[in-house]
Amino acid sequence: MSEGQSDIALIGLAVMGQNFILNMNDHGFKVTAYNRTTEKVDRFMANEAAGTNVVGVHSIEEMVKSLKRPRRVMLLVKAGDVVDKFIDAIVPHLEKGDIIIDGGNSEYVDSNRRCKALEEKGILFIGTGVSGGEEGARYGPSLMPGGHPDAWPHVKDIFQACAAKADDEPCCDWVGKEGAGHYVKMVHNGIEYGDMQLCCEAYQLMKDALGMSCKEMSQVFSEWNKGELDSFLIEITRDILAFNDTDGEPLLEKILDKAGQKGTGKWTAISSLSLGMPVTLIGESVFARCLSALKSERTLASKHLQGPAERRYKGDKDEFVEHIRQALYASKIVSYAQGFMLMREASKEFGWELNYPAIALMWRGGCIIRSVFLGNIRDAFKKNPELTNLMLDDFFAAALHRCQESWRIVVSQAALLGIPTPAFSTALAFYDGYRSERLPANLIQAQRDYFGAHTYERLDDPGNYVHTNWTGRGGDVASSTYNA
Amino acid sequence: MSEGQSDIALIGLAVMGQNFILNMNDHGFKVTAYNRTTEKVDRFMANEAAGTNVVGVHSIEEMVKSLKRPRRVMLLVKAGDVVDKFIDAIVPHLEKGDIIIDGGNSEYVDSNRRCKALEEKGILFIGTGVSGGEEGARYGPSLMPGGHPDAWPHVKDIFQACAAKADDEPCCDWVGKEGAGHYVKMVHNGIEYGDMQLCCEAYQLMKDALGMSCKEMSQVFSEWNKGELDSFLIEITRDILAFNDTDGEPLLEKILDKAGQKGTGKWTAISSLSLGMPVTLIGESVFARCLSALKSERTLASKHLQGPAERRYKGDKDEFVEHIRQALYASKIVSYAQGFMLMREASKEFGWELNYPAIALMWRGGCIIRSVFLGNIRDAFKKNPELTNLMLDDFFAAALHRCQESWRIVVSQAALLGIPTPAFSTALAFYDGYRSERLPANLIQAQRDYFGAHTYERLDDPGNYVHTNWTGRGGDVASSTYNA
Repeated sequence: MSEGQSDIALIGLAVMGQNFILNMNDHGFKVTAYNRTTEKVDRFMANEAAGTNVVGVHSIEEMVKSLKRPRRVMLLVKAGDVVDKFIDAIVPHLEKGDIIIDGGNSEYVDSNRRCKALEEKGILFIGTGVSGGEEGARYGPSLMPGGHPDAWPHVKDIFQACAAKADDEPCCDWVGKEGAGHYVKMVHNGIEYGDMQLCCEAYQLMKDALGMSCKEMSQVFSEWNKGELDSFLIEITRDILAFNDTDGEPLLEKILDKAGQKGTGKWTAISSLSLGMPVTLIGESVFARCLSALKSERTLASKHLQGPAERRYKGDKDEFVEHIRQALYASKIVSYAQGFMLMREASKEFGWELNYPAIALMWRGGCIIRSVFLGNIRDAFKKNPELTNLMLDDFFAAALHRCQESWRIVVSQAALLGIPTPAFSTALAFYDGYRSERLPANLIQAQRDYFGAHTYERLDDPGNYVHTNWTGRGGDVASSTYNA
Repeated sequence: MSEGQSDIALIGLAVMGQNFILNMNDHGFKVTAYNRTTEKVDRFMANEAAGTNVVGVHSIEEMVKSLKRPRRVMLLVKAGDVVDKFIDAIVPHLEKGDIIIDGGNSEYVDSNRRCKALEEKGILFIGTGVSGGEEGARYGPSLMPGGHPDAWPHVKDIFQACAAKADDEPCCDWVGKEGAGHYVKMVHNGIEYGDMQLCCEAYQLMKDALGMSCKEMSQVFSEWNKGELDSFLIEITRDILAFNDTDGEPLLEKILDKAGQKGTGKWTAISSLSLGMPVTLIGESVFARCLSALKSERTLASKHLQGPAERRYKGDKDEFVEHIRQALYASKIVSYAQGFMLMREASKEFGWELNYPAIALMWRGGCIIRSVFLGNIRDAFKKNPELTNLMLDDFFAAALHRCQESWRIVVSQAALLGIPTPAFSTALAFYDGYRSERLPANLIQAQRDYFGAHTYERLDDPGNYVHTNWTGRGGDVASSTYNA
């Protein structure tokens, strides 16, 4: 092995790591491959990486020696302590100005912390979102790098070369300082949870309310993929529905209905709560996965708790399928609007100055939520970077108006037929709440003042907090330090 | 002032503190009152506490000297740093075996921490939930103490004497170790958020879908309060709706519809997400408050985003009011079922061994969510302490079956009329999900395996995780360390 020849090193040879190495190799970069369990290095070099320029190494020392300066070391390992341990192991071998890139699904708070801690040692940290699964990693992922701005010029060429392209532009741009890249990736994943839940609700409605077969449903998703819903997740749902097991029956129906999760959806919902942004669709999608995981409880409950007598939709099947499509599309608009509301608030909170059109472009291709739809979002934010809310953009407002009747029919029918559509429903409730000048929260304020002397504002005198002695008993002391 | 005479000291003379002191005084306990701003002490002694046995002091030294051993010092101050600062200031004046009680709305994690830290110094810590607002504090709150078990015998008499009584039993019992008391109070508050949101949705439906006046709605809540919905929050909603401003118009309609929040609802939702329990109704209720707070955005959106042409319900008014009542009742069952699911999981996670019938009894009286309903919950857990889920208890299952038709009509009509009912809707979706042996999460698992090689289980082979090469392209390598 010749020293100082590699452009970048990558640690972590699970499927994503292997594929991203091969991707970089294809684009003419010389990559050093390392893995803690070194048999994986040997296996990779003997198989997938055979005949490439990839260099396999068995130690961190070797790895660092193989690199050009400034050294670029990328981690694609399990998020959490493992990242810190690798950083601690690598840093003693690096020098000032070298770059560590964490491409795992780290929490943005950890990336904030690592960026600051490494800066003190003169090491430039990048926390980057990588999305697109194995295929994306291999042939072009969406990359969302954030961290120390000085690192970006040294990484830009590699990242933009290897990233997916959409409309000839790379789906990779600088996101912002510290943990901004991982934050945006987290929101991406949260939105992904939402999109997947929307697919599930469409599938369950077609299956249970319309009695459609997997084959028929696959055809529907295939049609949907030709229009405004054109996206990776609709496309793979089409394929999954069409995929048969060895016995010729749809494999999907043999899969256990307990959804796993790795945390990013949960983090997005927690961040929404912390920042006070009503990101309801992702919240419901995370909770839907939690509920799915309670399989044995559900099985028990299914024997005790009754639904409505009728579970089949009585009207026209094709018409209802179209209603479902429009419900899905409208719900998706709400979900993305909520996601961008969250990023706007986070950007304000952390001083990141996120670039919304760039984010939409990064998500336009390569990643799991890639879609034609994200092109429309990009257009909306390009037209008006100060857009308060995606739903107020002319294109999306018109789409919501066009879809709302179908959407209402679907949510209403699902309630009557006993088919759970938590995401469609919450999206509609959000739409109706968001467009309400008056919400019933005045009653909440009155109640809080009644029992806790919390005070309230009057419509005719906002900014002035007053307390009413509602009962005629008790004191006029407003609550100040104690909060019930 | 004679030394060593007081039974307990209380720090923090906001309305809750003042009232709880007077409550303890009424029950024959000698209380020392202290406040950082000592003018408050003097004002309290000269007014509310005049003629009582309460002792006012101007310093922590004086306060501690006034107390019998073991000293009992209770804080009713703003949650957060203030609590730590007071603890730090008091501890040097205490001796081993003395007791510090935090009755504020502290986070349970802080109470966990304080309990451990004080134990090392020989001080016994109690973190107690106090609910009931000013009235409750004065005439009998619900008290939910947890912390160091050795402290309980020294506090039990005072607390159980001053607590509310329900069916002749005190609404106060030992909750569990460390932060268990504050955890249960947190869930109480989360449920309170839910109950308040349910009142709001009923109010908005009657107002917007049925065009009812505040006076008419007050009569409805008055009727509801005579039946199975009999509860403090229904009662005060009745009173609030009937309360007129000086001009004779309902005050409620003049209150700004931006709901405030102090954090406990948010914490409950965050804990639900962390523990993977689908506490959807509280989640939606917290988000509904967040949405209400975006008043200026909503005002803007109300001019751009359209709803359905028809906002009025066409059917029989009285019948629909009864549908709303049943929707509220059924949703409430779901919300409490979710709350107990969360406590069960937390109890498992933290090793608290929570006593569910005792919790139901603590909430039965005194606190904001007190209700006849909590008596039914207590009965359910008394009958079967191992009850998997409240909804599976015969009483509640029968209630759900009785209410479901009305509930479905309300959710369905709200969707069609464009009136947001996020809590009614999510409760129904949860009910329908919980009673589903099959949910569409098999599609989520297929998608995750498709794009991320996450593997899945088969219905006919649970416990065995398999990967399918869905595309015929790519590898057969399953994702292990990297999680997209």
